[in-house]
Amino acid sequence: MDSVKVFAPATVANLCSGYDLLGLAIDFPGDEVVLRAKKEPGLVIKKIQGDEGKLPYDSGENCVTVAIQAYLDYMDSQAGFEVELHKKMPIGSGLGSSSASSVAGIFAANYLLGEPLAKKELVQFAIEGERVACGSAHADNVAPSLLGGIVSVNSYDPLIINEIELGLDIFLGVVHPNIEVRTADARAVLPKKIEMGDVVRQSGYLSSLLLGLSQADEQMIKFGLQDVLAQPHRAKLIPHFLQAKELALQMGALGCGISGSGPSIFTMTTQKEKAKEIAAEIARLFASKGIESSFYCSGINKNGARVVE
Amino acid sequence: MDSVKVFAPATVANLCSGYDLLGLAIDFPGDEVVLRAKKEPGLVIKKIQGDEGKLPYDSGENCVTVAIQAYLDYMDSQAGFEVELHKKMPIGSGLGSSSASSVAGIFAANYLLGEPLAKKELVQFAIEGERVACGSAHADNVAPSLLGGIVSVNSYDPLIINEIELGLDIFLGVVHPNIEVRTADARAVLPKKIEMGDVVRQSGYLSSLLLGLSQADEQMIKFGLQDVLAQPHRAKLIPHFLQAKELALQMGALGCGISGSGPSIFTMTTQKEKAKEIAAEIARLFASKGIESSFYCSGINKNGARVVE
Repeated sequence: MDSVKVFAPATVANLCSGYDLLGLAIDFPGDEVVLRAKKEPGLVIKKIQGDEGKLPYDSGENCVTVAIQAYLDYMDSQAGFEVELHKKMPIGSGLGSSSASSVAGIFAANYLLGEPLAKKELVQFAIEGERVACGSAHADNVAPSLLGGIVSVNSYDPLIINEIELGLDIFLGVVHPNIEVRTADARAVLPKKIEMGDVVRQSGYLSSLLLGLSQADEQMIKFGLQDVLAQPHRAKLIPHFLQAKELALQMGALGCGISGSGPSIFTMTTQKEKAKEIAAEIARLFASKGIESSFYCSGINKNGARVVE
Repeated sequence: MDSVKVFAPATVANLCSGYDLLGLAIDFPGDEVVLRAKKEPGLVIKKIQGDEGKLPYDSGENCVTVAIQAYLDYMDSQAGFEVELHKKMPIGSGLGSSSASSVAGIFAANYLLGEPLAKKELVQFAIEGERVACGSAHADNVAPSLLGGIVSVNSYDPLIINEIELGLDIFLGVVHPNIEVRTADARAVLPKKIEMGDVVRQSGYLSSLLLGLSQADEQMIKFGLQDVLAQPHRAKLIPHFLQAKELALQMGALGCGISGSGPSIFTMTTQKEKAKEIAAEIARLFASKGIESSFYCSGINKNGARVVE
C-alpha cells in the first residue's frame, strides 16, 4: 500500500453548554487528503483544491503537513509523502475546516504506516495542526472528526477524551451563512471572568445536556442546549442569529446554537426531516436578508475519519 | 391514619465538580419526624430530641414546620399537626441536617393527607425549610434526601431536578470531624468570579463525573472528582483536610471532597469494605490530631425519605 485517500468529517463544537468541551461529527461535508509514499523523507504538498487560494503550500505552515510531521516525529519515522488536499467544506465556517484537513492527513499517514497507533492516540498530533491553523491547540473539533460521535474533551494535560454513549438518535441541521467571523474576534468578545452564579447556571445546562443525551430524555437535552458563557456575546457577531434561533425553536428544534466560533449555526432534533426543514427555513431567512448560505442535514457521524480509496 | 413517623437520610452535596448542583443520599444517619393529626389547624412542635437545645420550638422559625406550612398553604389545607423531631445526625455537619428534618416533615404531611403530591413535587416546599435554616433556598440536599439516588439540580426557575441513572455500585465513606464550619464562612471564602480557564477545567471534571457514573467508568469518575471552584478555598476551613484526602487517594478512593460546606469529608469507592476502611483511617488521622469524629459507610440510598412507622 503506497497511497490512500481519507475523508474526515466536519464537526460542530461547543454545543451551547459544552463551551470548549463538547464536539460532534456530522456526515457531510468534510475534507479529503490523498497521501502517496515517496522514497525520500519529508512532506511535499502537491495540490490543494477548493481553497480559493487561501491555504499555504509550505509544509511548515499548512496544518495538514504540520500534523503529519508531528506524528512522524513521534513515531521516529523517516517516511516521506506527497500530499493532496481536497477542501470540500468552507474555510472559516465554524465547522472545523482545518481540523477535518489535519485529521484526514494524520489518519492517512497512520494508515500507510500500518496503523501502529489507535485512532484515539492520533488526536494529540491533529491538535498540532490546530495550533498552526487557529493559534490554539484545541481538540473539540479534531477529536470528533477523528473518532466520530459526540465527544467530551475533559482535559488537555493529560489529554482525556470521552465518548458519550447516546441513548437516542440525534439529527443536526447546520447552516453556514456566507459571512466572515474571525476566530480571534470570537475569542475577544468573551469575558475573561464569569460570575459564580453564571458558572453554576451553565453547569446545570451542561449536566442536563449530558444526562439527557445518555438517558434519552428530549426535555433534558432541550434545557441543556442553553449557554450563558459564549452565546450571548458571540450572537452579535452573526447577523440575524437570534431570529434564526427563535425560528428553529418555534419549528420544534431541541436547541439552536453557534457552531464553534461561528458563523455556522446548528440546530438539534430527533427527527431527520425536521432537521432538514429547519435548516432550509433558516437558509431562507438569511436569503431574505441578502445573505447567501449553504445548509446540511445529518445524523451523528459515528465513524469519524475513514479511508475512501 | 392520623399519625406517622418518617425517616429522611443525610446527604452529601457538591461532589467536587458538582458544586451547587449535585447531591446524593446515604443510608445512615438521618432524621425522624413524627406527625400527629390534631383537630385544629396549625402546627405545634411538641418535642425536639437530640439537638442539644439548638433548634427553635417556634413553628415560624423551625425549618420543619416552615416547610410543612408551605406545603399546607399550597394545598390550601386546614390540617393541623403536632410535630416531634428526632435529630439523629449532627447539626452543622455538612451532611444536610436541616434538609433531612424538613424533608421528613414534608413527606410525613403529604403521607397523612393521602399522598396528593408526588415525591418530586415536594422538593419546592422542603426548599422553604432551607431558606429558614440556612438563609438560602438550595435544593442539593433536600432533593436527594427526598428522592434518594444521586441527583442534579439543573435549575431553580423553573425547578428542574434530574436523577442520574447509575451504571455501577458506589459506596461512600463519610467522616464528620467535631469542629464547626459556619455555612456563612464557607460561602464567604469563595471567589465571586471565576477565570474562564477554570470554568472550562471544572466543566471537564463535571462532564467526566457524570459520564463516568452513567457509563460505569471508574477512571472517568476519578478524574471527575476534582474541583477548582470551591475545594481550594474551603480546604483551609477544615484542619487536616488535605492530609485526609491524600490518605484516601493513597488507599484507593476514587475521590475525596468536602461534603456540602463541610466540615464533613466524603470519599467515594466502588467497594463497601474499602469505603469503611478509608473512613476509619481518616477518623484515626483526626484522632491523632486531637479531633474527635464520627464516621459512616453507605451505598447510595436509592429510596430517600420513607415511612418507618
